[in-house]
Amino acid sequence: MAEGTITAALLVIGDEILSGRTKDKNIGYVAEYLTNLGIDLREVRVVPDVEEEIVGAVNALRSRYTYLFTTGGIGPTHDDITADCVAKAFGVPIDVDPRAVEMLLQRMRREDLNEARLRMARIPHGAELVENPISRAPGFRIGNVIVMAGVPAIMQAMLDNVAPGLVKGEPVLSETIEAAGLPEGLYAAGLGEIAKAYPGLSIGSYPSYSPSGFTNQIVARGRDRAALAEAAARIRAMLDGLRAGQS
Amino acid sequence: MAEGTITAALLVIGDEILSGRTKDKNIGYVAEYLTNLGIDLREVRVVPDVEEEIVGAVNALRSRYTYLFTTGGIGPTHDDITADCVAKAFGVPIDVDPRAVEMLLQRMRREDLNEARLRMARIPHGAELVENPISRAPGFRIGNVIVMAGVPAIMQAMLDNVAPGLVKGEPVLSETIEAAGLPEGLYAAGLGEIAKAYPGLSIGSYPSYSPSGFTNQIVARGRDRAALAEAAARIRAMLDGLRAGQS
Repeated sequence: MAEGTITAALLVIGDEILSGRTKDKNIGYVAEYLTNLGIDLREVRVVPDVEEEIVGAVNALRSRYTYLFTTGGIGPTHDDITADCVAKAFGVPIDVDPRAVEMLLQRMRREDLNEARLRMARIPHGAELVENPISRAPGFRIGNVIVMAGVPAIMQAMLDNVAPGLVKGEPVLSETIEAAGLPEGLYAAGLGEIAKAYPGLSIGSYPSYSPSGFTNQIVARGRDRAALAEAAARIRAMLDGLRAGQS
Repeated sequence: MAEGTITAALLVIGDEILSGRTKDKNIGYVAEYLTNLGIDLREVRVVPDVEEEIVGAVNALRSRYTYLFTTGGIGPTHDDITADCVAKAFGVPIDVDPRAVEMLLQRMRREDLNEARLRMARIPHGAELVENPISRAPGFRIGNVIVMAGVPAIMQAMLDNVAPGLVKGEPVLSETIEAAGLPEGLYAAGLGEIAKAYPGLSIGSYPSYSPSGFTNQIVARGRDRAALAEAAARIRAMLDGLRAGQS
């Protein structure tokens, strides 16, 4: 199913990312995953475990993009407040959901289901559950908001479970052109001209640095296969011309 | 110099992060670096190379936090629009800055300083330059906004150059307590009680998962050394009690 441009935002929730204690691994994964589904990730935010920050970001982002994905804050401890914040953002009640309790009971005995663990079964009214094959405590989807765990392996499994139900966009095609040996400053003018000629494509130049120097790659991205091939050919020809001029 | 709570936001600029092509390495680095300076990183945003998105985010974040750091978008190619966007956000003119030209000339000959490379010397009026010891094209600071390169090695060097001029906060102290062998759901209630007793501390529980199971760490953070030591002792005693109850 392809219906034009489908957009998304990602909200990463957690003090531990902002303190630097935990290095986020979800942003890059979600970005690549959504790109492969033809969904354009347009914005990422990282906010602390503070109710007003989470509620504010959920409402700002869910109204702006087709989907909002969140990671983090759905465990059993006091600092896990994501589900309550999402309920508040939507203005709906939140309660222990019997379907979620059943899922938790796949991993633990009923007598071990204490109050803290039951917090993991608190689901906003009207949400659909997202299964967690690893530790069972589910994520959920309410409206266009998909709430996932922060632990990367669990987040990834939840994304796999939610993906079939997402509206996909046209896949974005991309061409990577190695600018080996050529500095950005030499091809910037030519590249800018080409970028101007293809306003429907996104063309970028990406330097990476190692002690032996810079290596630059040019990436052209877009949904029009013919335009992309044409632009890539023009970029390669432009670089070849510069190389010939250098030698 | 310590003057109460000093806050910061980080704005990561670049299509390549949102497409997943480039995996960001700056968020975790900046988070840890600022934490070590006693500066509280409160929010991170990632936005694309789109003028209105960058201008909007710069203005939203610079008004809310003591400092705003940006990474990315200050190279010579057409997609490098950060300096112009920051000038627009501040409502100041932007021009080729002779001081920045001098810096570029440390790395290239004047005859190689073409129009594209001169873009790297475009600096908003009123900004101070931030030296780049690697490729010379400077970052800059205007008001409370610090504009840095996206290439991690260069960003890190710029951060070192700007750090001495930042107002620092009281350092945040932290205690990490291994909850080895204990599931979160077992200590969540006790931990919640302790967290409630120390509202000035931030106490979190962080699971990490490997195929052999979960390993949990509890982290308590705060600026009150005595309260932190007391809370950590209570957490350790609580965990010991649970371990004794289990065996």
